[in-house]
Amino acid sequence: MALRLSTLFLRTLRDNPADAEVASHQLLMRAGFIRRAAPGIYTWLPMGLKVLAKVEGIVREEMNAIGGQEVSFPSLLPREPYEQTGRWEEYGEGLFRLKDRKDADYLLAPTHEEMFTLLVKDLYNSYKDLPVYLYQIQQKYRDEARPRAGLLRGREFIMKDSYSFTIDEEGLEEAYQKHRAAYLKIFARLGLEVVPVAATAGAMGGSTSEEFLHPTPIGEDTFVRSDGGYAANVEAVTTVVPEEIPYDDAPPFQVRHTPDSPTIATLVESANELVPLEDRAWTAGDTLKNVVLAIVHPTGEREVAVVGVPGDRSVDIKRVQANIGALMEISGEVAVEQATDEDLRSHPLLVKGYVGPGLGLDHQVLGSEAATGLTYFVDPRVVSGTTWITGANVRGQHVFGLVAGRDFGWDGTIEAVEVREGDASPDGSGPLQTARGIELGHIFQLGRKYAESLHLRVLDANGKQATVTMGSYGIGVTRAVAAIAEHYHDDKGLVWPRNVAPADVHVMVTGKGEELINAAEKLVGDLEGRGIEVLFDDRPKVSAGVKFGDAELIGVPTVVVVGRGYAEGVLEVKDRASGERENVPVGEAADYVVAAVRG
Amino acid sequence: MALRLSTLFLRTLRDNPADAEVASHQLLMRAGFIRRAAPGIYTWLPMGLKVLAKVEGIVREEMNAIGGQEVSFPSLLPREPYEQTGRWEEYGEGLFRLKDRKDADYLLAPTHEEMFTLLVKDLYNSYKDLPVYLYQIQQKYRDEARPRAGLLRGREFIMKDSYSFTIDEEGLEEAYQKHRAAYLKIFARLGLEVVPVAATAGAMGGSTSEEFLHPTPIGEDTFVRSDGGYAANVEAVTTVVPEEIPYDDAPPFQVRHTPDSPTIATLVESANELVPLEDRAWTAGDTLKNVVLAIVHPTGEREVAVVGVPGDRSVDIKRVQANIGALMEISGEVAVEQATDEDLRSHPLLVKGYVGPGLGLDHQVLGSEAATGLTYFVDPRVVSGTTWITGANVRGQHVFGLVAGRDFGWDGTIEAVEVREGDASPDGSGPLQTARGIELGHIFQLGRKYAESLHLRVLDANGKQATVTMGSYGIGVTRAVAAIAEHYHDDKGLVWPRNVAPADVHVMVTGKGEELINAAEKLVGDLEGRGIEVLFDDRPKVSAGVKFGDAELIGVPTVVVVGRGYAEGVLEVKDRASGERENVPVGEAADYVVAAVRG
Repeated sequence: MALRLSTLFLRTLRDNPADAEVASHQLLMRAGFIRRAAPGIYTWLPMGLKVLAKVEGIVREEMNAIGGQEVSFPSLLPREPYEQTGRWEEYGEGLFRLKDRKDADYLLAPTHEEMFTLLVKDLYNSYKDLPVYLYQIQQKYRDEARPRAGLLRGREFIMKDSYSFTIDEEGLEEAYQKHRAAYLKIFARLGLEVVPVAATAGAMGGSTSEEFLHPTPIGEDTFVRSDGGYAANVEAVTTVVPEEIPYDDAPPFQVRHTPDSPTIATLVESANELVPLEDRAWTAGDTLKNVVLAIVHPTGEREVAVVGVPGDRSVDIKRVQANIGALMEISGEVAVEQATDEDLRSHPLLVKGYVGPGLGLDHQVLGSEAATGLTYFVDPRVVSGTTWITGANVRGQHVFGLVAGRDFGWDGTIEAVEVREGDASPDGSGPLQTARGIELGHIFQLGRKYAESLHLRVLDANGKQATVTMGSYGIGVTRAVAAIAEHYHDDKGLVWPRNVAPADVHVMVTGKGEELINAAEKLVGDLEGRGIEVLFDDRPKVSAGVKFGDAELIGVPTVVVVGRGYAEGVLEVKDRASGERENVPVGEAADYVVAAVRG
Repeated sequence: MALRLSTLFLRTLRDNPADAEVASHQLLMRAGFIRRAAPGIYTWLPMGLKVLAKVEGIVREEMNAIGGQEVSFPSLLPREPYEQTGRWEEYGEGLFRLKDRKDADYLLAPTHEEMFTLLVKDLYNSYKDLPVYLYQIQQKYRDEARPRAGLLRGREFIMKDSYSFTIDEEGLEEAYQKHRAAYLKIFARLGLEVVPVAATAGAMGGSTSEEFLHPTPIGEDTFVRSDGGYAANVEAVTTVVPEEIPYDDAPPFQVRHTPDSPTIATLVESANELVPLEDRAWTAGDTLKNVVLAIVHPTGEREVAVVGVPGDRSVDIKRVQANIGALMEISGEVAVEQATDEDLRSHPLLVKGYVGPGLGLDHQVLGSEAATGLTYFVDPRVVSGTTWITGANVRGQHVFGLVAGRDFGWDGTIEAVEVREGDASPDGSGPLQTARGIELGHIFQLGRKYAESLHLRVLDANGKQATVTMGSYGIGVTRAVAAIAEHYHDDKGLVWPRNVAPADVHVMVTGKGEELINAAEKLVGDLEGRGIEVLFDDRPKVSAGVKFGDAELIGVPTVVVVGRGYAEGVLEVKDRASGERENVPVGEAADYVVAAVRG
């Protein structure tokens, strides 16, 4: 049945809603596809629901094509399984928690690793049952601190999440590659360019992981790519580690008074004044900046740690946050902040502005085994034999010529500094450029983390208990709708790709007279008879201008105007995307539209 | 693509799960359609999801056919709209409430009246926009005190809820009748007998209301019906009110000592001993039993009230609960309990076992204007002129010949006593029989309650603001799946009706040899090519007995066995429901199955 605008539950808005920042949010609201119910929580109106159903349909087809089997879990889940894997705590404030009338703890599921693991455990017990790929398309909940940009970062949203269960890593690799290929197909069918980028695993655990980022200036994620094909999100980029330098002939370090030099800029100035070089000037890159950070564990515990980085680079808190948990063996998401004065006060050996690793391996100040006992990580560029100007842990004093490995050590290296355009890509494929993107998908090789926590074991080929290997794969379905709207729009409105358009064709009557209406009704009937989905603007008392405006705002790919030309036997057929118009004889209009729709 | 049992995520269970009481629950678990995730919260496995999708599809088609437009609201909703209509409080413990990270109140929606009302208010402003019928098929949440019987009474479940918005009552009546007709069609297509019964409106507010009850002995709802076509749920049945009796010639009442007569049985005994009648014996029906109840308001306030009923009838707390709120002008759901000794102690005029309305209109004890100040309702059979033996409010004393209307009054009448088989139906259509049923649907004429609370007004034909009239219509979708499973099963398993079966045909190979498998594969391919959904038992190392057992448990309507007969050129086709078997020549099998499926 045609959707008739005379009765369709749709009202277009002339103006952008006050709270809508990005084009997709503005247009989906203005064109009557969604409405806001609460911050980050949206209602789907009839037209929006049609697009959503098509996106879901494409995702479902491709998941079925790789052997995925659809199930559906509840959203309201008991605490226990999430307690067992530690995620009840680890999720922190991002988890919606509640109690039932018996005071039992529940949550609104952010993802379903635990439930899928337990379900497979419930049904399966032999390696012969594996592999199995299960998926669902279902709403998810995350109590985002800053829901934004409409459907792009919501608190209730729809995800396709799937999980692979295999007997070994080989099976996992196959499942991972199948999902990867399916994701590329899905996004291609949705008309969305994506770049699979290497990613860190975050709170999900596991090892190999890629995000599917859709490049767009409004994206929240920054990623880097090289002309040679390397791509990674900023958190996951690795630094090209320089070669170690022999330090046998290096002169000994010297401590100098450097009054009023608590910052890198003032330090460089002092150095050039007090200890000038012959062949060049000291630069920030010659200094080792030791940044004191506070690491907040998922349990709330606050721990001070120090990161030493070249003074010409600033610390990227998000990168530290993505990487430090694993290095410090903290499970769950940690929060990282600049240390406060109070943090510093509780470690009196740290002299603000003059923090340094210490003067000689036997006099080390930073490090878990050193005087402060504080964990000390350094940037990968700080390799053995590199020489630095750095703090001497005394107010107004710095040390010159401190040699890494000879004069100080560290607990480990960390990717902590900001990635810059022009940095070398780790695979040697050329300099990095940065770009912004929307994360539309994420695939993880989870490994055995969840299976171990929840005791998912099966009998292997030798009759022994073996822990199952898992992968986890997500697509943001509602986010994909927003990304499509964002990419496919112009200044007049939405421009839906055919695969996901709310209708195939938008037929409108402009002008009065029963003849026009009858002709339009006949065309609509013909098209529907041929399986074409029609949005029919049959509103009797609405001006042609308003109808044209609405058609451009709503963005159905093909528009047929039954109007002025009808007297001369033609209808106007317009392509929404290209703007091309063509007069088509009335008798051929249905064929013409069918050909356009079927491509 | 055929569902192949060799890889399908399905394991059948031989034994009934310990916690499953009713057949539908047992069989849906055993046949691998659902799994329990928490009390009253279920996971849908692939086969269950197929049935669910078919049920949803039928509901969707019929809703679209009456002009319903599909939308989808969030489950997680802010408190404000529910606060405005009073339901945030009224829902009491049945509502899942939670807070977000900013400490704002949210709920998991039990129904969406408020949100639909606000959405229409957002989009529409003229009577010309009306009528509009909106619906969604979506999960709902109720924190049931006693989730039970699997999908029959869950805490997370799927409902189709729709709402009509019309300018007046005439429009509402039309919307109501259209929904009523659509519901009858839906349940017919689902193969579920339903009886539309008159219902009380409960916490939803509004006036006319009918429940669609599916008669079954395991139903939680008791309803009554007459041979003449009357049907009502027990809460809504009305009593045939007797004619008033002139009392001019009635003798005055007399107070008698009736020691040790605190119960109706002991009272009748005492009466026959102390004040014997000439022509007959006193019976319980001659006594007026005054039952002291505690009414718990939605706010938690506890109020004592008294209900006077003929001594041969017991009070039905559920009926009192359904009706007393409106009579006492309490909005929201009230809880009703027997008064406790503590309740009685706080009203010392109430003498336990000897409570009565008082001796004469000027000495009334019960009643909001009387000595106790307690609201006093009576059964509709207590009409003016009826004469009663009842308590004299003194221990060991009863009054005889107390005449209603002459010697005592009341605040109102209430349907408070249990309905009995054989009671007269209120429309004169014969004696009532009682039956049990499952509530599968409920339709309400809400009227203007929500529109008034939330200020949903449109301009009427005269350009004046008019409050919109609403109806609300629900179908328990997951409950319907359970009801179908409950009705269509035998001692071997499920017996799905074709309209909702997880597959059209179940093909199995029994016996070994490539020839058999190839023949089965060919048949499966042929059937799928003709649009038939096939469940294919291709498991290589499973015995014929297990395969037959699973086929009967799973309950696909038609079963084809590629086995022993194949050598003689025939396949066995079995009808799951009738158990009839027929040998069909291999070459005709596909045609035969298609004919069976297409009916």
